[in-house]
Amino acid sequence: MAKGAAALKKKSDLKREAAKSAPAQPAVPDDQPIIALDLGPANLSPAMQAYFQKCQDKLGFVPNVLVAYAFDSAKLEAFAAMYNDLMLAPSGLSKLEREMIAVAVSSQNRCYYCLTAHGQAVRQYSNDPKLGEHMVMNYRAARLSKRQRAMLDFAVKLTNEPWAVEEEDRAALRKAGFSERDIWDIAAVTGFYNMSNRIASATDMRPNPVYHGMSR
Amino acid sequence: MAKGAAALKKKSDLKREAAKSAPAQPAVPDDQPIIALDLGPANLSPAMQAYFQKCQDKLGFVPNVLVAYAFDSAKLEAFAAMYNDLMLAPSGLSKLEREMIAVAVSSQNRCYYCLTAHGQAVRQYSNDPKLGEHMVMNYRAARLSKRQRAMLDFAVKLTNEPWAVEEEDRAALRKAGFSERDIWDIAAVTGFYNMSNRIASATDMRPNPVYHGMSR
Amino acid sequence: MAKGAAALKKKSDLKREAAKSAPAQPAVPDDQPIIALDLGPANLSPAMQAYFQKCQDKLGFVPNVLVAYAFDSAKLEAFAAMYNDLMLAPSGLSKLEREMIAVAVSSQNRCYYCLTAHGQAVRQYSNDPKLGEHMVMNYRAARLSKRQRAMLDFAVKLTNEPWAVEEEDRAALRKAGFSERDIWDIAAVTGFYNMSNRIASATDMRPNPVYHGMSR
Amino acid sequence: MAKGAAALKKKSDLKREAAKSAPAQPAVPDDQPIIALDLGPANLSPAMQAYFQKCQDKLGFVPNVLVAYAFDSAKLEAFAAMYNDLMLAPSGLSKLEREMIAVAVSSQNRCYYCLTAHGQAVRQYSNDPKLGEHMVMNYRAARLSKRQRAMLDFAVKLTNEPWAVEEEDRAALRKAGFSERDIWDIAAVTGFYNMSNRIASATDMRPNPVYHGMSR
Amino acid sequence: MAKGAAALKKKSDLKREAAKSAPAQPAVPDDQPIIALDLGPANLSPAMQAYFQKCQDKLGFVPNVLVAYAFDSAKLEAFAAMYNDLMLAPSGLSKLEREMIAVAVSSQNRCYYCLTAHGQAVRQYSNDPKLGEHMVMNYRAARLSKRQRAMLDFAVKLTNEPWAVEEEDRAALRKAGFSERDIWDIAAVTGFYNMSNRIASATDMRPNPVYHGMSR
Amino acid sequence: MAKGAAALKKKSDLKREAAKSAPAQPAVPDDQPIIALDLGPANLSPAMQAYFQKCQDKLGFVPNVLVAYAFDSAKLEAFAAMYNDLMLAPSGLSKLEREMIAVAVSSQNRCYYCLTAHGQAVRQYSNDPKLGEHMVMNYRAARLSKRQRAMLDFAVKLTNEPWAVEEEDRAALRKAGFSERDIWDIAAVTGFYNMSNRIASATDMRPNPVYHGMSR
Repeated sequence: MAKGAAALKKKSDLKREAAKSAPAQPAVPDDQPIIALDLGPANLSPAMQAYFQKCQDKLGFVPNVLVAYAFDSAKLEAFAAMYNDLMLAPSGLSKLEREMIAVAVSSQNRCYYCLTAHGQAVRQYSNDPKLGEHMVMNYRAARLSKRQRAMLDFAVKLTNEPWAVEEEDRAALRKAGFSERDIWDIAAVTGFYNMSNRIASATDMRPNPVYHGMSR
Repeated sequence: MAKGAAALKKKSDLKREAAKSAPAQPAVPDDQPIIALDLGPANLSPAMQAYFQKCQDKLGFVPNVLVAYAFDSAKLEAFAAMYNDLMLAPSGLSKLEREMIAVAVSSQNRCYYCLTAHGQAVRQYSNDPKLGEHMVMNYRAARLSKRQRAMLDFAVKLTNEPWAVEEEDRAALRKAGFSERDIWDIAAVTGFYNMSNRIASATDMRPNPVYHGMSR
Repeated sequence: MAKGAAALKKKSDLKREAAKSAPAQPAVPDDQPIIALDLGPANLSPAMQAYFQKCQDKLGFVPNVLVAYAFDSAKLEAFAAMYNDLMLAPSGLSKLEREMIAVAVSSQNRCYYCLTAHGQAVRQYSNDPKLGEHMVMNYRAARLSKRQRAMLDFAVKLTNEPWAVEEEDRAALRKAGFSERDIWDIAAVTGFYNMSNRIASATDMRPNPVYHGMSR
Repeated sequence: MAKGAAALKKKSDLKREAAKSAPAQPAVPDDQPIIALDLGPANLSPAMQAYFQKCQDKLGFVPNVLVAYAFDSAKLEAFAAMYNDLMLAPSGLSKLEREMIAVAVSSQNRCYYCLTAHGQAVRQYSNDPKLGEHMVMNYRAARLSKRQRAMLDFAVKLTNEPWAVEEEDRAALRKAGFSERDIWDIAAVTGFYNMSNRIASATDMRPNPVYHGMSR
Repeated sequence: MAKGAAALKKKSDLKREAAKSAPAQPAVPDDQPIIALDLGPANLSPAMQAYFQKCQDKLGFVPNVLVAYAFDSAKLEAFAAMYNDLMLAPSGLSKLEREMIAVAVSSQNRCYYCLTAHGQAVRQYSNDPKLGEHMVMNYRAARLSKRQRAMLDFAVKLTNEPWAVEEEDRAALRKAGFSERDIWDIAAVTGFYNMSNRIASATDMRPNPVYHGMSR
Repeated sequence: MAKGAAALKKKSDLKREAAKSAPAQPAVPDDQPIIALDLGPANLSPAMQAYFQKCQDKLGFVPNVLVAYAFDSAKLEAFAAMYNDLMLAPSGLSKLEREMIAVAVSSQNRCYYCLTAHGQAVRQYSNDPKLGEHMVMNYRAARLSKRQRAMLDFAVKLTNEPWAVEEEDRAALRKAGFSERDIWDIAAVTGFYNMSNRIASATDMRPNPVYHGMSR
């Protein structure tokens, strides 16, 4: 069950660069394949090759979810396009808020990959390691603004009982100051992690070990 | 809360063409907006305009989920790219099997939009109206091959308790004849409808009424 | 596992008459026994013979639930007496409302038989095929009057957590305009389908195939 | 919200006779109406009058569920006919076994009325007060024969997730020695208490206080 | 799997004394070991020997939970110290109220041992056999003061979804008249039975049979 | 709602000492009271004063759960005695294994306090930060020995459905090599955290902030 990571970049390079961005974290090798399916690497399109290179340059590593998708260039492109639009494009939700939704949703679904990778993102964007832990463990234990609490209550209800979401739930978001477009974005980010959590759980996807020590 | 459908095509044309493909179904107007969020239509990219035209030509209507996404051309493109790759691109799963997963998952999440639209797809692809009803109501009541039963058992477990999916679940799929790539596809389709169900429920998305009478 | 249907009426006659009431539906044979228990037909009492004949004359077929019960005339009479009193006798609830409860309850219990047979009844009584689909898929997605919404909220809570039904739930029904007797009837119909759903699921009861195409 | 008990028999007589059959139990008055709905007593048919008299003569009291139904003679007759057929007519299940199902099901649904009345019946038929407590509290804690354990496992699964009952569940009953007809009876008794539990919970039905001290 | 009871006191003595306190209950032998683990008795410390003697003198028997813990004197002392502080030391909650929590919690966890032993305590402290049954079967069916209902609602929510208990739940207790210290005590008793229920269920702990007939 | 911590030790001292054991962690003040109940500090017994001093000397801080209990010296002693016996006394389970149970249980109950404090303990005892995250996020994602997996499966089942634990569950532990006494210890540790989780959630208990950065 060898994974495609090696085909994309030498592992030692990856480690070295990752180490730079998180120097206090010893470069512990993760002796596990990235996913539990044996899917060889595809020839990536130039756009995707450039995307991976950009990850290396900015993060010091390619997130394993992208390596996992690299067995099929079209699937990788579709995933990356949706991810980048949802999490990075302009929105009434801050990037931190979108990551908070990602983690609170992943906590309901107990997704090891997403909790690790996006828990780190919450710690980094918020500059508050405790907030990342709150999102992982129980978002209700965090001291949140009314806006952010309403946002997460909606995301968690939509995760756990989507059939019961109704007009009064949307009204609660509007009352907390969210626009129509913001509500769409909350729903779309919640939906996206309900998808990603399941793909990660179905394939036993492993996060890059470097996440564990970052932004602590 | 007027929706963007009218901006794309005159409603009467839509009705007329839909009626062609399902002549026994009277063209009952659905007096509800497509979603419960007030998002004006965007200027679609030429690619998306062509896509909508293709829907009209082939189906006689533009599925409402696409109209709902039409408030933002980038989001629509990302959604359409992922949808078309997952549901229509070559795969070890037949198109019918992918639609069966879509409906069995949507039944767990009780998503009115997806059950209506993809229930119709199962009826059409299988030429067996009963099979569509089985997927909507309780997939366990259908008389399925071992392969399809294993596929749906995996999809439903992944939907309801993603945290509990483990190697033995993947092993059951392999034993039923699925390849590594097939397992990815089952996971990805399951994940996709766990996303779509939630976006549809969060926005109270309404299916095109024409679906109800088609392929009965 | 031959069933008792043949003893009651020639199958071809049944099909022929059913076809009359739903001419657009091809008479697809359902190659399955009515239930998964091997129980021979009993000698029906004259009253029950007359009842079956009346079904044939009015519906064009005998509903399979009655055929299933026909292995024991006393059980059939008790079931038919309770069914007819609950669903057809005078009540503050319309026949459509009683069928709506039947389907919303059966949706919680995912009962293939009852969803098929009573989903058809909702379509027929309401002359609104969409309403039947709403009840099958998610009653919360339907646009209901406050009265009917309160009625179904009570029925679904009573189905899913009967231990939690208390005075405030009855008060909500009274506030929605229901009388004491109406509340009894809502409870009794809800209870009845919680019984029937379980007998149908326990025995893998199969609905008459003709239901699928009727009242679309 | 006075109930119809008084119309049927003087309360003092009821108490006196009840006291005979459970002399160690002081005749504590239960200062609550039998149900939380205000439904006046109907004129009972001669058959139902005789039935109530028979209860008095044999039990020393009329079970409150019958008094509750006495607001409508037709409903009372239908209920009594089904009850008597299921619980008292010849069956491959002993009367004790049918009462064990009644209590194990009622425990899942936490129905105060049925647990009290039928818990007493298990104590009486089994001559083992502990067995009644086991059925009320957790049937898995009882030391049961394989036959009775299989019977209750089926009844409890059918109660809690009827949608998941399949051929392998019926096969387990057959393996434990149950006939086709026995399986029907297990399903029918399970169904009946899933109905009765909900009618009792919906109406806050109160058991005759005399049950508490009987057969201890 | 012999248990340590015999080592502590002759069984016949135990029976005799138990019989005194509950003379209407025939001394039915319970032919089961106290727990399903084979743990020999320890040498009890003098304090624990005295404690067991005190149980005998006051109750006529040593509760089986103590006999179960008697395989390790330190564990027994820690358990007894916590139990006695929580259930018997001065508190704003009456002893009856603490036992009501014990039984309502144990009902959620369906713990046969605790329901039997503490159900008896509720019957005894309240002098109301019905109240004990209510706590065992469904506390919502009891006619409780607002104070006691708020107390049990908190205990049951804390049992079933501890992650969802928040400030508004504490506020509801304060509004019902409970002090800060009372709230701690409600939480601590609830927590204690969530512990004990699980130790009893994990070891299949058997209550002293004498409980069944006491305080009826 | 000031808490008793200040009464026991000057906060600045606590910080200074904590900093020693986790120097990479800036001493972020946690501006929240330890619990949401306003309970003044008690006069601690000499034994408890010594215990707190020992915590300071060994850990550099007093764990907040002990400070929370310090409003009542008897309760603190009972809690500390049970805790120390369960988690630190000789057992067939290693200290790491007992902490793994603590965290896996606390993850089911989503207890912020216990996940933080005992997650740190798993990281420290195992010298494997990833293992602590696995226990917090989803123990099924960890690569465990059969022994440890069996241990956690039992603990999690006992946490989530204690009523369903039966002889076959104990047999699985015996098969994995656990002794009778080990099984008791698994049950007792599982029970203890089901208690502690609920006391922490009921009181909104806050962990010492220093835990977050330790043993990463």
